[in-house]
Amino acid sequence: MTAAEAPSARLAALGIELPPPTTPAGSYVPAAMIGGLVSTSGQIPVKDGALMATGIVGAEISQEEATACARQCAITAIAAAASVVGGVDNLAGVAEITGYVASAPGFTAQPQVLNGASDLCVEVFGDSGRHIRSAVGVAVLPLGVPVEVAIRFIPA
Amino acid sequence: MTAAEAPSARLAALGIELPPPTTPAGSYVPAAMIGGLVSTSGQIPVKDGALMATGIVGAEISQEEATACARQCAITAIAAAASVVGGVDNLAGVAEITGYVASAPGFTAQPQVLNGASDLCVEVFGDSGRHIRSAVGVAVLPLGVPVEVAIRFIPA
Amino acid sequence: MTAAEAPSARLAALGIELPPPTTPAGSYVPAAMIGGLVSTSGQIPVKDGALMATGIVGAEISQEEATACARQCAITAIAAAASVVGGVDNLAGVAEITGYVASAPGFTAQPQVLNGASDLCVEVFGDSGRHIRSAVGVAVLPLGVPVEVAIRFIPA
Repeated sequence: MTAAEAPSARLAALGIELPPPTTPAGSYVPAAMIGGLVSTSGQIPVKDGALMATGIVGAEISQEEATACARQCAITAIAAAASVVGGVDNLAGVAEITGYVASAPGFTAQPQVLNGASDLCVEVFGDSGRHIRSAVGVAVLPLGVPVEVAIRFIPA
Repeated sequence: MTAAEAPSARLAALGIELPPPTTPAGSYVPAAMIGGLVSTSGQIPVKDGALMATGIVGAEISQEEATACARQCAITAIAAAASVVGGVDNLAGVAEITGYVASAPGFTAQPQVLNGASDLCVEVFGDSGRHIRSAVGVAVLPLGVPVEVAIRFIPA
Repeated sequence: MTAAEAPSARLAALGIELPPPTTPAGSYVPAAMIGGLVSTSGQIPVKDGALMATGIVGAEISQEEATACARQCAITAIAAAASVVGGVDNLAGVAEITGYVASAPGFTAQPQVLNGASDLCVEVFGDSGRHIRSAVGVAVLPLGVPVEVAIRFIPA
């Protein structure tokens, strides 16, 4: 990997600044090294300290809004994972994404929504950002957010 | 393990031919080696290139139809995992199944549905096919399928 | 760790007696060593051999009742994991919790419900009980239970 291909350089080229990792309000942590992978808690779409959206996708929330939320979840996941290993350039790639979409009956485009997270991972980590993924449509999510994403990263 | 007990021989005895692994339409892959396990993306019930069924279990889809879908998901998972390690006989067993059933209110037989996947694993891998499992009932799944199953296999 | 800080001593101080591990009715097992972690199947809230509650949280089941169910799920998870490693004192801590809450529309306090499981882990394992966590609200769960919790433990 050349310096220009480092995740930090790719993030800068995309105009993305990693937020400070959020501090969950409980007995849990945003991310941890588990079984050799840097794994995150389920991330909700927080941007500039506020929820990006609340509501059910296919009802109050459009597919496009939900896709933007999934992308933001991936950004907060990268931030959380980076804080465990001392910086984003100590992450080598992405192993696995589990994505939950709060879905109205009949809304079946969960994969397209989760592409917001998956595509961001490839933009930041290149081919090493490709991963396995499960995408499901759930009833409702914490705080009423439309999307929740958990990611397992490969450390450098 | 004798040759007759090899997963490929058991599959043949069951009359099951592994399909070519499906190619997900995104930045993700059907299966990958993760933390020492061959782990798959969430598999949907595709048979002969087409969805086996769409609909909600307990409403449009019966428990029996859903169980057959879960079994097919396990077959596609085995195919996806086999493609990572160079053939099904390079899989030694099953570690973990996560199964999602698109469920009508009041449908609580998710374990029976997922037995379609779990029992197939034991038929193919014998006692090494036993695994931990989570079974949940969700609102709706990608493309409207009734069942989605992700599996972590133990490589040989 | 002093003897007084051992998980078995903490459990005794909390007045918690581990139940015998439940035997799932299928081709799966309550817990297994997977990728270096002692991982459990999804646990449902069984106490003294009976379901603690059935119903949807935010409708028939209150947040407080659901929180007590989540705590009980963690207790059965500890019991299942302990049976794999020869006793609870052979568990060093908790790596990951995935929690599913059967949720009425508009019920968004899944994190508070799951704190019933998370806080119990910290009570039993101290700081080593802190973990990553995903909390989601699903349509319905096996047997109609309000909460299902799967846990990955760190062996000693």
